[in-house]
Amino acid sequence: MFITLEGIDGCGKSTQAALLANLLAERRDVVRTREPGGWPEGGALRELLLHGGLCGSWTEVLLFVADRCEHASKVILPALRRGETVICERYNDSTLAYQCWGRGLDREKVEALIDWCGLPQPEVTLWFDLPVELALSRRASRGGCDRFEAQELAFHRRIAQGFAELSRETGRIVRIDGAQSEADVTEQMVNALRQRGVQF
Amino acid sequence: MFITLEGIDGCGKSTQAALLANLLAERRDVVRTREPGGWPEGGALRELLLHGGLCGSWTEVLLFVADRCEHASKVILPALRRGETVICERYNDSTLAYQCWGRGLDREKVEALIDWCGLPQPEVTLWFDLPVELALSRRASRGGCDRFEAQELAFHRRIAQGFAELSRETGRIVRIDGAQSEADVTEQMVNALRQRGVQF
Repeated sequence: MFITLEGIDGCGKSTQAALLANLLAERRDVVRTREPGGWPEGGALRELLLHGGLCGSWTEVLLFVADRCEHASKVILPALRRGETVICERYNDSTLAYQCWGRGLDREKVEALIDWCGLPQPEVTLWFDLPVELALSRRASRGGCDRFEAQELAFHRRIAQGFAELSRETGRIVRIDGAQSEADVTEQMVNALRQRGVQF
Repeated sequence: MFITLEGIDGCGKSTQAALLANLLAERRDVVRTREPGGWPEGGALRELLLHGGLCGSWTEVLLFVADRCEHASKVILPALRRGETVICERYNDSTLAYQCWGRGLDREKVEALIDWCGLPQPEVTLWFDLPVELALSRRASRGGCDRFEAQELAFHRRIAQGFAELSRETGRIVRIDGAQSEADVTEQMVNALRQRGVQF
């Protein structure tokens, strides 16, 4: 099973991914990974994408999708073929939310590009939704920030709107109320996966 | 003026680019550059593309075009805006020849991708054509080889065929007989540019 976790920065993806991986690992083999850069040579692309001085929105989307092609070929697909469960922080929905809603790139083109690459589709996507101000204040308490986190409030609002619109279009994306306590968020996540036949 | 130099590995692009830059620099400011990686932070992408363990043809094309977007924004377009002449080794035609003819990717998709990125078009492309075996023997004498150079003969033949077909489609690409002596190749190049109004 291939599960992705999505949402704006500071929404709790990493914390919940770690908790979910532990819960699922009691009954099956689990690979926990993330984008960008979640493959052996992916560090250079992650550094360029999050901290480089890139000036083009098309550069961004091409690098994110290139990174995903290698990540899928080298990490996600081999794990799925071995029958393992893959938990991945950020995937195609982040590309659409950030580069189309956030940067203003044409969605049809970006979706065509993703389609051409023949990437595997997640069975379930957990979208951690919470007010942008709350996410940013949580994020700020961690210190440091990357190129995307350093963007203005309006950028993050557009991303949040992107995730909301994407979730309305497909039953694949499950909304999780990320404003609740850590334990409550985990419970929502577990319930959502139980409803889809995942055993804990 | 924006001039690109194209051809298979070992065709003499780098040698002739250096000679051309010197000749042109007597009358104007010249920027000599190359792809991939010809921009300040481009070294990581060049390394990944030429020596990384990439497994996808789409990864390749996305990284080459992403690299080109930054190269155009940061090096080529600023130089052209300053009124300088840009000489660039490898550009869009290499992407089409290597990734479409060489790797077998769909040309319409790759051309669409290049088009979406709004890249500047060269006024003239000098294509150094010579028998594949001759190019490879010249290349071999330099020692070392990258991921593309290490490919089998049939791959290089397909690339050569790609450049030949591209050159038949557009008056932008000028065929230079790269099998001649270094001085003869330079003379052909200078004559081709003179015919297009370039003064030496």
